[in-house]
Amino acid sequence: MRYALGIEYDGGGFLGWQRLTQPGVESTQTLQAALETALSRVADAPVATTCAGRTDAGVHARCNVVHFDSDAGRSPRNWMLGTTSLLPPSMSVRWCREVAPDFNARFSARARRYRYSILNRPVRPALGRQYLAWTRRPLDAGAMHRAAQALVGELDFSSFRTVHCQAPHARRDLQEISVRREGDVVVVEVQANAFLHHMVRNIVGSLLEVGDGSRPGHWIADVLAARDRRRAGPTAPAGGLVFLGPLYPAGCDLPAEVTLGAEGAGASAAFLPFPTP
Amino acid sequence: MRYALGIEYDGGGFLGWQRLTQPGVESTQTLQAALETALSRVADAPVATTCAGRTDAGVHARCNVVHFDSDAGRSPRNWMLGTTSLLPPSMSVRWCREVAPDFNARFSARARRYRYSILNRPVRPALGRQYLAWTRRPLDAGAMHRAAQALVGELDFSSFRTVHCQAPHARRDLQEISVRREGDVVVVEVQANAFLHHMVRNIVGSLLEVGDGSRPGHWIADVLAARDRRRAGPTAPAGGLVFLGPLYPAGCDLPAEVTLGAEGAGASAAFLPFPTP
Repeated sequence: MRYALGIEYDGGGFLGWQRLTQPGVESTQTLQAALETALSRVADAPVATTCAGRTDAGVHARCNVVHFDSDAGRSPRNWMLGTTSLLPPSMSVRWCREVAPDFNARFSARARRYRYSILNRPVRPALGRQYLAWTRRPLDAGAMHRAAQALVGELDFSSFRTVHCQAPHARRDLQEISVRREGDVVVVEVQANAFLHHMVRNIVGSLLEVGDGSRPGHWIADVLAARDRRRAGPTAPAGGLVFLGPLYPAGCDLPAEVTLGAEGAGASAAFLPFPTP
Repeated sequence: MRYALGIEYDGGGFLGWQRLTQPGVESTQTLQAALETALSRVADAPVATTCAGRTDAGVHARCNVVHFDSDAGRSPRNWMLGTTSLLPPSMSVRWCREVAPDFNARFSARARRYRYSILNRPVRPALGRQYLAWTRRPLDAGAMHRAAQALVGELDFSSFRTVHCQAPHARRDLQEISVRREGDVVVVEVQANAFLHHMVRNIVGSLLEVGDGSRPGHWIADVLAARDRRRAGPTAPAGGLVFLGPLYPAGCDLPAEVTLGAEGAGASAAFLPFPTP
C-alpha cells in the first residue's frame, strides 16, 4: 500500500531534507532521516520516503509531501498520530492519505510554491526571528515586484542556480512571482513547475538589490539573460524561506492545500495569527 | 531626560519581565535585567526601567513599553540601535522617544492589549510552535466569543487571578474581548485598563472548556460571579500569549501602535507573514 504524508517543519535545527551518508552525521540531523526513523518504528519495518521538495539546511516547510510504501496495515490516522509522536518537536505530520500505486510525491507534482519574508526596519527581529530575514535598508516592494515579472515563463535560470546544482539543465517554468509589503515585512511568493538548487534564495538576493535602489529594475532581466551565476546577487539567508508545498492534479485526491485549482491551494492567504514584529 | 522605549521579545527563554533578586539567578534570565544591563552599557551609568506590562515567564511581547531617565545625552536613534546591539537575539528595541518628565510607562497607560493563539487540529504545531498553544479537541470559536462577552465591563475578576496575585483589589475594566477562528487557529484578543496576574491565561483556560463543549456558555458568567479561583478553568500555557502593548493618550506623542484611537493602535490586524501551520 502507498501513502502520502503532508509534513510541516521548522528547519532551523536541521542540515536540510536529504539523508546524508557521511560518517559522523547523526540520523536526527536531517529531516528525511528523522521522518524515516519515526515511520519505521510505526511500521516496525524499514520505510523509505520520496519527497516533493528537498529543502536546504535551515529552510522551513508548511507542507512538504512525501510518499512511502508499507504493508504494515496502519490506518492513515495512526500513521499521522503515531509518527508525529515519534518526531522531534520541530516536525509534525499534518495529514496522511492512501494513494494510488503510481502516485509519486516528486514526479506527480505539477508545481511548487515558496514564500520568502524579509523584515525591513532599522532593528533586527526578535518575535518571529526564526522565520524572517532582515534588512535595514528601505525596500521598494513595488519596484521589486515589477522587476521580478521578467522571470515569468519557461526560461533558463542558470544565473540563479548554485554551482553545486546537479540538475541536468536549468530550464524551469516559473508560473507566478509576487512581491508585496505587509507592514514592516516584504513578502516574496513564487510558483514554478520545479526549482533549481538555491533558485528562490538567489532570486530574492537579486531582487533585494533592486529594492534598495542599488540596481535598476531592468537589471533582473539582464542577469537572467547572462546565464551566469556570477552576475546575480548573493544568496539570501535560509531562515526567511518557507516551502508552502507542492501542487498535484485533482485526480490524486489529496487535501485542498496541495491540489491544483482547489480553494486554499498553496495557502498564500493564511498567516500565523500573531503580530508582525 | 526621560525616554520611552518600545520593546519586542520572544519570552520563551526568560523567567519573565521582572528582575529577580534570588541568589543564583543570572542577570540575563529576566527581560528587565537583560534590558537594564544593555541600557547601562550604552549610558555608561546605571539605568533603571519601569514597564507597562510585567509579563510572566514564557510570555512574548510585540511592544512592551518602558521608561527610564538618563543624562547620558544619547539620541533616540542611538538608544535604539546601541541597546539592540547589546541585547540577546530574542529582544530588540522597536523605537525610542524623548517624553515629558511626568510620563510613566506603567501609570500613564490607559489600556493594555493581549492576544492568545491556539492551534486546533489533531497534531501539535511544528512551524510557529514557539507562539502557539495547542488543543486537539475541536473548538467552537463562536460559542467562546459569545460566552466571553459576560466579562466585558468594570468587574471583579477574583475568579481569574492566581492566588499569588498581589494586586490590592480584583476590579478591572475589561473593555473588549473577541474570539475568532483563522483556519486551524483560534485567536483570543482582549483589552482592559490593566490585568491581574494570570488573568488572560485563566480566562482562556476557561473559554477552552466552553469551546470544546464540556461547559455551557453561561458557565463563564457563573465563574465570574463566584469570585473564586477554584471555579475557573486551568491556566492556559504561557507560550500562546503575546502582549500586544499598552495604549497611551495621544498627548504622550508616542508611535501610533501604542496611541489610543490612532490607526494601527494595538495592531490587531497585523500578522506575521508566513503560513498558518
